Amino acid sequence: MKEFLWKSIQNVKTSSPLVHNITNYVVMNNTANALLAAGASPIMAHAHPEVEDMVALCSATVINIGTLDDYWVESMLKAAAKAHKSNTPWVLDPVGAGATAYRDEKVAKLLEYKPTVIRGNASEIMALAKASLTKTKGVDSVHQSFEAVEAAIWLNKTVGSVVCISGAVDVVVSGNEKVLLKNGHPLMQQVTGLGCSATALIGAFVGSAPENPFHATAAAMALLSVAGELAQKTSSGPGSLQMNLLDKLYSITEEEFLATINCELNNAGVSV
Amino acid sequence: MKEFLWKSIQNVKTSSPLVHNITNYVVMNNTANALLAAGASPIMAHAHPEVEDMVALCSATVINIGTLDDYWVESMLKAAAKAHKSNTPWVLDPVGAGATAYRDEKVAKLLEYKPTVIRGNASEIMALAKASLTKTKGVDSVHQSFEAVEAAIWLNKTVGSVVCISGAVDVVVSGNEKVLLKNGHPLMQQVTGLGCSATALIGAFVGSAPENPFHATAAAMALLSVAGELAQKTSSGPGSLQMNLLDKLYSITEEEFLATINCELNNAGVSV
Amino acid sequence: MKEFLWKSIQNVKTSSPLVHNITNYVVMNNTANALLAAGASPIMAHAHPEVEDMVALCSATVINIGTLDDYWVESMLKAAAKAHKSNTPWVLDPVGAGATAYRDEKVAKLLEYKPTVIRGNASEIMALAKASLTKTKGVDSVHQSFEAVEAAIWLNKTVGSVVCISGAVDVVVSGNEKVLLKNGHPLMQQVTGLGCSATALIGAFVGSAPENPFHATAAAMALLSVAGELAQKTSSGPGSLQMNLLDKLYSITEEEFLATINCELNNAGVSV
Repeated sequence: MKEFLWKSIQNVKTSSPLVHNITNYVVMNNTANALLAAGASPIMAHAHPEVEDMVALCSATVINIGTLDDYWVESMLKAAAKAHKSNTPWVLDPVGAGATAYRDEKVAKLLEYKPTVIRGNASEIMALAKASLTKTKGVDSVHQSFEAVEAAIWLNKTVGSVVCISGAVDVVVSGNEKVLLKNGHPLMQQVTGLGCSATALIGAFVGSAPENPFHATAAAMALLSVAGELAQKTSSGPGSLQMNLLDKLYSITEEEFLATINCELNNAGVSV
Repeated sequence: MKEFLWKSIQNVKTSSPLVHNITNYVVMNNTANALLAAGASPIMAHAHPEVEDMVALCSATVINIGTLDDYWVESMLKAAAKAHKSNTPWVLDPVGAGATAYRDEKVAKLLEYKPTVIRGNASEIMALAKASLTKTKGVDSVHQSFEAVEAAIWLNKTVGSVVCISGAVDVVVSGNEKVLLKNGHPLMQQVTGLGCSATALIGAFVGSAPENPFHATAAAMALLSVAGELAQKTSSGPGSLQMNLLDKLYSITEEEFLATINCELNNAGVSV
Repeated sequence: MKEFLWKSIQNVKTSSPLVHNITNYVVMNNTANALLAAGASPIMAHAHPEVEDMVALCSATVINIGTLDDYWVESMLKAAAKAHKSNTPWVLDPVGAGATAYRDEKVAKLLEYKPTVIRGNASEIMALAKASLTKTKGVDSVHQSFEAVEAAIWLNKTVGSVVCISGAVDVVVSGNEKVLLKNGHPLMQQVTGLGCSATALIGAFVGSAPENPFHATAAAMALLSVAGELAQKTSSGPGSLQMNLLDKLYSITEEEFLATINCELNNAGVSV
């Protein structure tokens, strides 16, 4: 498993997939830099007249609703529809799902285009499942007590997406497969947008290996969390961590990666 | 006074206020990172259908007109109106006030919702007072020779806002109170958006201590300028200063802060 | 020649030109920081009601189509028209030209306002020439095999712009003059937006010396590539390179610059 993850990381560097991003203003620069450091090629584009062309041009599309508004939601829907129709892998980051009714309504619409992968924190994944259920079955039927992994499994079953819950332990769920990734460092939460970088990296990995989005997602999460854990060791705070993480995404060696990665593959059901 | 400022800094770290930002594209990333490093939680959101919900969700709202356009101005007005109506503290950063008639017209409108705090440089504060006067009394009555501190006092009296003029010496004015803060370093001017970070930090501080926006403003300005002064000592230019400042906002100790802070509280009137 | 380039660099620091940028979301922060580090003063503004005022206020306008959409294209056209009409230098960065029909249509329109300088990579410059030809003469007449330098010469002759092709060797073309700049480092390509920073710096240089846009362009490109080459020496990857580059733009000395610059002025025709 660990060697396989490392091969995926190498594969991104050699194939350098073009990744189309419709993402939020806060993280655009970091996202582009994370993709470049990992060996991918980022494109950021959202204009209605060109967004479908960009999907067609790229190996994967990443949609992140962080600073959404009506124009951008329309861009996202156009891109997701095109990706769905053309079997281009696409990744959804439901930033802030659950915070406002507006976000929930929009993510529920995006789910209709069946993202290849969804990545969010526990509360976003729970909110997403709830928003989708609400839309499908009406408010009354909402299961109020969804746990994050339950929500992920439900989303995987009903939407078909690989689902990644990121946190102290990252969990990736698909069918009967589940990976737990136990790397990273708490200081990473003090740097804005590392979750968004994770989602973008998933785009790169799934773009370079579309045949197995589950493993691609695990490899992307492994790269970011291992690089973050290593970068933290030479950092004095969130400012230097942000910089060192980009350096490490670029320079990480097989030795470092294999010595640090701490993951668990569990095929015997998906309970944690 | 100095111990009180330090307590406010600690208070932000322990209460971790949610801060809603409608700010400019240039500084969104840095602003989010500065808030995180100081212990607050940033949200960036501007969509008309959700902006009022975001105000309701957060401890404070920060409005920064740096890269305004008509859609964003409408977001700002909705948020300011909601904050005003619901007694949520909100902070205005009138970036570039005075540069164009468009900016002056928009900031004058925003002033109608009585920001809790206004922070700008001397020329912005002067332009703001002038824009407000012009709107209220017509162009002819504009006092052409407003000095920055005079302008701040006038804004404080007529609008009710705590007013902070940032510069080599930062001045915070409210009623009969005035604080002078003499920290910082000239190199901070070579890093884009540190004024915007200051405004966002004021949002965090006023959100965690809404009962005293004057002291909250002074504490936020003290944190940024002391951290900047300390960070500069290990920096080789504006690039490393930007990074070291984030590290220092995160790691600053009571000892460092108290040994560096240089401020003067002046209750005996507001002339400098 | 080399001493002349250094003088131009000094001239930006002493004259501190205001540079108006309508640029993309990904690079706004870096662009502003690069301009500040080099001694210029950045303004980012795109609102239709103020964009012409901003052109009038500034020494140069920089237009970068990276994350264009219809609103922003209208801002760009207004600004370009105003700059053209008022003889304000303006610089075009045709990011992603050739990637979509939408981009090609918009850059062709922008060319009508005769940018003072155009900077892009080889494929963008070729796409720009093709888009312009297509627009002028219809699709059938498009010369399919334009080489980048040929395209630059053609653009220079028909549009009148100084044209800079950036790459391992940067080429600046104007009339019978040509400069080759052989500095920089491949790692610079792993940092997002350094091309955009180059364009913004050209804006600063041409704003501080509008009488000779050819030399201003060469000096801006020389500064960025020499600073990048020097910064790379102390960098461990793209994260630290981004930081060290800003430091070096700020702190570069005459000695360092003259010892590193590697350029060739060629007045005897423009073939490479």
